[in-house]
Amino acid sequence: MKTIRDIETLRVVIESYKKERQIIGFVPTMGYLHEGHMALVNVANEENDIVVMSIFVNPTQFGPNEDFESYPRDEARDTALAEQNGVDILFLPSVETMYPENLTATIHAQKRVSVLDGATREGHFDGVLIVLAKLFHLVQPDSAYFGQKDAQQVAVVQGFVADYFLPLTIRVIPTVREQDGLAKSSRNVYLTEQEREEAPVIHAALRKAREEVKERDTARVLANIRVAMDQKKTHEKIVYLDMYQYPSFEPVEDWEKPIIIAICVQYSKARLIDNEIIGGA
Amino acid sequence: MKTIRDIETLRVVIESYKKERQIIGFVPTMGYLHEGHMALVNVANEENDIVVMSIFVNPTQFGPNEDFESYPRDEARDTALAEQNGVDILFLPSVETMYPENLTATIHAQKRVSVLDGATREGHFDGVLIVLAKLFHLVQPDSAYFGQKDAQQVAVVQGFVADYFLPLTIRVIPTVREQDGLAKSSRNVYLTEQEREEAPVIHAALRKAREEVKERDTARVLANIRVAMDQKKTHEKIVYLDMYQYPSFEPVEDWEKPIIIAICVQYSKARLIDNEIIGGA
Repeated sequence: MKTIRDIETLRVVIESYKKERQIIGFVPTMGYLHEGHMALVNVANEENDIVVMSIFVNPTQFGPNEDFESYPRDEARDTALAEQNGVDILFLPSVETMYPENLTATIHAQKRVSVLDGATREGHFDGVLIVLAKLFHLVQPDSAYFGQKDAQQVAVVQGFVADYFLPLTIRVIPTVREQDGLAKSSRNVYLTEQEREEAPVIHAALRKAREEVKERDTARVLANIRVAMDQKKTHEKIVYLDMYQYPSFEPVEDWEKPIIIAICVQYSKARLIDNEIIGGA
Repeated sequence: MKTIRDIETLRVVIESYKKERQIIGFVPTMGYLHEGHMALVNVANEENDIVVMSIFVNPTQFGPNEDFESYPRDEARDTALAEQNGVDILFLPSVETMYPENLTATIHAQKRVSVLDGATREGHFDGVLIVLAKLFHLVQPDSAYFGQKDAQQVAVVQGFVADYFLPLTIRVIPTVREQDGLAKSSRNVYLTEQEREEAPVIHAALRKAREEVKERDTARVLANIRVAMDQKKTHEKIVYLDMYQYPSFEPVEDWEKPIIIAICVQYSKARLIDNEIIGGA
């Protein structure tokens, strides 16, 4: 595995792969790698000649009161994990490398962002698109790999890629979970012991809701999830819990088409998200 | 020459060029081709294996009271000219092809746009960047060719390409002029006979100013241009006339560094721009 920190070296390496007509798979991450990331790397390895992973905690997608500074980082461990799992190129840029000066132009997410993380994390998806536009242009992947846990992010990125005709495929990989159902997340390390014990209720409540959706009663589905969540005591609050068509994030009108139930739960330090997508391919 | 109107065909053709490792030069235009465009095509032909030209009158870069509807169009003549001048691929998309639905994300120019066309044509450069982002991703050129007449556009596009690490070079080609000095422009057809006779004053006044800049007196340089312009009667007004550092479009502070004098003149129907860049490489 080759570790690269600067733009020029990355460009040269990518250019040489392109000349050799190697197929490039790209896994953009914020590091603190877990099995969810490794699932992306595994699929990328199956589908491509070369796997590029980026680790970059992107400041523009964090709000002023969010956890940019305290976001967990462990470069040595991440590097070892990436190498063990067959990453070919690990791109580890600094903030100064990715943002050498103020942007001449900014990107603003307009659709699919009026709800959930788009509503509660102002500017979050703008920052996601800005950094991904940069990374996609640098890495020039044939495919880029995202986890379904970040379903709204996936929808926004897919819309951006389609709108701007980016020559790459977005591949969405199912959420990887702990044995008790808790979605793998870098932020799980923020959980206290008791919170960790109770957090699997999130997935359990959403799974149960899958069945109830058949009755086509949005209010009841959501109310039952809240009842299930309320039986646990450790979380501070449900930041959001809602159902939409997927991937439009418009209100549910057609029960035959894909529907997402998405939740965000605030614990003492951890803000966790999860979702279930019902129907569709 | 191959004329292509749809995204899928263009993608297939570009993909085949990429596989053959052909170097692609790209000339994005709004059509109604003149010798200015052909100068870009000529350089592109010298520097590349394949020349792709797009003709697309892009609605998102026109304001509500601007000339989108009446912008001159002549597809048959343009097609013949492109073919005669060695264009390999002519991309002629419809508005529906380029904008199949509302954008998931928009791009907003933030720097180099507080003055001149950025100030007088609200949203103009946003639209320019949006359509160029789309076209760059589709054509995947090694180089893209722009005329110096659109100097502010060039500066904004260069900033965008640098910020977002687009893997292409922006090549800027000197403005092509009529024998009497008037900059070639698709909008020159809007000029009445008398306006056409007097319009060369724009270039003459700017040329004269080149010399006066040596005295480092911004107010006097600009006043003298206005005096020269005032000796002609046909134009309605000077929309803007100003001097800046180039390409930052910041106020002039360092006379050793490149300076642009830029002017926009409104005639009865034609809105013409021109500029002189002084100093620099």
